[in-house]
Amino acid sequence: MSSYIEFDAKKVIDYITNLGSFFDKDASLSCYEFGDGNLNLVFRVQDTQENSIIVKQALPYARCVGESWPLTLDRARIEASVLQRHGEICPDTTAKVLHHNTELALTVLEDLGHLRILRGELNQANTFTRLSKDVANYLAKTSFYHSSFYLTPSEKKALVTEFTNPELCAITEDLFFDDPYRDAERNNFPAALQPSVEMLRKNKALLVEVAKLKAQFLNAPETLLHGDVHTGSIFVDAKHTKLIDPEFGFFGPIGFDLGSFIGNLLLNYCAQHARINALPKRRNMQVYLLDCIATTLSSFYATWLELAKTHTRDLSLQADGYAEYFLTKVLQDAVGYCGCELIRRTIGLAHVADIDAIEDEDARLAVQQRALHLGELLIINANKCQTTDDVYQLIISFVN
Amino acid sequence: MSSYIEFDAKKVIDYITNLGSFFDKDASLSCYEFGDGNLNLVFRVQDTQENSIIVKQALPYARCVGESWPLTLDRARIEASVLQRHGEICPDTTAKVLHHNTELALTVLEDLGHLRILRGELNQANTFTRLSKDVANYLAKTSFYHSSFYLTPSEKKALVTEFTNPELCAITEDLFFDDPYRDAERNNFPAALQPSVEMLRKNKALLVEVAKLKAQFLNAPETLLHGDVHTGSIFVDAKHTKLIDPEFGFFGPIGFDLGSFIGNLLLNYCAQHARINALPKRRNMQVYLLDCIATTLSSFYATWLELAKTHTRDLSLQADGYAEYFLTKVLQDAVGYCGCELIRRTIGLAHVADIDAIEDEDARLAVQQRALHLGELLIINANKCQTTDDVYQLIISFVN
Repeated sequence: MSSYIEFDAKKVIDYITNLGSFFDKDASLSCYEFGDGNLNLVFRVQDTQENSIIVKQALPYARCVGESWPLTLDRARIEASVLQRHGEICPDTTAKVLHHNTELALTVLEDLGHLRILRGELNQANTFTRLSKDVANYLAKTSFYHSSFYLTPSEKKALVTEFTNPELCAITEDLFFDDPYRDAERNNFPAALQPSVEMLRKNKALLVEVAKLKAQFLNAPETLLHGDVHTGSIFVDAKHTKLIDPEFGFFGPIGFDLGSFIGNLLLNYCAQHARINALPKRRNMQVYLLDCIATTLSSFYATWLELAKTHTRDLSLQADGYAEYFLTKVLQDAVGYCGCELIRRTIGLAHVADIDAIEDEDARLAVQQRALHLGELLIINANKCQTTDDVYQLIISFVN
Repeated sequence: MSSYIEFDAKKVIDYITNLGSFFDKDASLSCYEFGDGNLNLVFRVQDTQENSIIVKQALPYARCVGESWPLTLDRARIEASVLQRHGEICPDTTAKVLHHNTELALTVLEDLGHLRILRGELNQANTFTRLSKDVANYLAKTSFYHSSFYLTPSEKKALVTEFTNPELCAITEDLFFDDPYRDAERNNFPAALQPSVEMLRKNKALLVEVAKLKAQFLNAPETLLHGDVHTGSIFVDAKHTKLIDPEFGFFGPIGFDLGSFIGNLLLNYCAQHARINALPKRRNMQVYLLDCIATTLSSFYATWLELAKTHTRDLSLQADGYAEYFLTKVLQDAVGYCGCELIRRTIGLAHVADIDAIEDEDARLAVQQRALHLGELLIINANKCQTTDDVYQLIISFVN
């Protein structure tokens, strides 16, 4: 990484001009930085003919904290490689990589600026018919084709090594599984939530379930995960769903991405109690979110099972009934990770705008209590679910 | 590995003389090859003063099959590294590495020639009081200190990569989990056993459990395993127990080594029905073997739990009750892998002398049927066990 330098708009234009691949030779290019993430610079480069591309460069530190939190540039390689691998399987739902330079930790991506970030759209109560099926399809296919059902053991072992991502995994390990359950400096919640947080931390059964989920996160290289499937990592419009930002990608438990996605839908569900006052409109949005969850679950399950029945290459794993057993475990894991996501986004370091942007303090607190309690109940009850319908029934028995 | 050359006795003496570390400068050294394994050359080098060392060199092919089955030399590095890491934790029960040369795939080891190979001793109905406690201690400590309870996630991820061992794992994956359950060329059993084998292969519940065990073998880097703990990998006398030959070492499920060891004790148990005619003597030997199993289980469990209670560094995994949950799963896995070992040693490629050396064909067949059926019952019932006593009761309810 010795040749790394941090880019600015001028350097980006020089670099792109030099590559000579994306615009007419004599195009007049402009460029601006617009990243609002925590870890990267994001530039848009455009000509005067409405052609544009995105240039993303990883910073050697976490932008939100400053240069005091150094962070490996290797994540840019991992992000580009995950996008390429997932893109081969699901080209329609994965942001396209046009170029990657590992030394510069720099990736050129298709510009998805004509789409919108899902989180903002949900916060405005905009709905998307394709969303759940597209995400389910992406999660099922990318996870199946990187699992032991499909890859030979030696192919998979080589990929596990290639996608070893200790520094970004450590962020998840800490923020997702550790901090929320103890006094940690990075936690972030209002004093009024303290009693609820204390109750949570006293629940011994919960702590054991969280330990199981963390151990699984550490010790189950089941597939090449996206690693950060929240609603801010998904671009949408009526006809498109595009996953971006898999820099947390690594080989982990299949239920993790699925649970993260559903968790973010449920965070939005909880937030809508304070976001929409008009009851019919609120119920419509919440029904949409629950439908999304139901469809994601059933579509993920059906797609995975069909792939397992028709494309499993491992002889032992073809055993009659094994895929169903495996998927039940994936569902249980997903419910658990979903619960963790609800909890850590409410009291941990990284929050969601769905909740944080609620202006009324009391209403926000009520939403936080709701999210926290829902997370706890899901984690505790995850292992009761045998089918996707069990998961759905569990969720609707605890929400509202 | 470009500088690899296959050694003979003369080259070994030259090499050892050159190193100048193990004998007097002017010692007169002799050397002979005595390996009876399948994958390596094993030399003893000695002076005239009863000093001796072992020189082990990996061959680039499987010796038992010939040069047509090429095999990575990297296994010599893995074997030496596992011995060194396990030896740091359990110096008394691990063969000592005196020198290692990765290019030559060559390791110099302490000579354990004053001890005996456990398998041969058990076949002669010799018993060893320390055996079960020593093995349990070795398995518990080496597995705990290489687990997520103790290692930081990034330490562990680096070790998982270092000990990625695809070629030798592939041998286990095929011979242990695949071949016995289908028509495979490498299988090896008498025609008279065919009906029992067919019954086994028709047991759908069994095949699903085997799939679970294989998936776990592929997807659970819980600890740095020895990878091949059979009674031919253990040197013993009344005062010593020494583990050798961890060339199958990799990060896998903790129950695998424990199950392999118990499986080999049970293979011997089954074989004693045909080996010892005199009933009191046979019962004594079989009671010894069952006691060994009971002590291995309880001692492994107690040691592991004590380490988990006092030395767990991961915050989440310290949750009250998690270690007990984890150990129950390890026990269930061990019972399953034990069952697989019984089956694959009876009908797969690699057999055990315990059974194969029984001269009476009918008696041998009866033992094989016994081992096969016991293996099946253990795999099917493994998940009923919650405690070490459950495991012991399960075993004694099926043996007799």
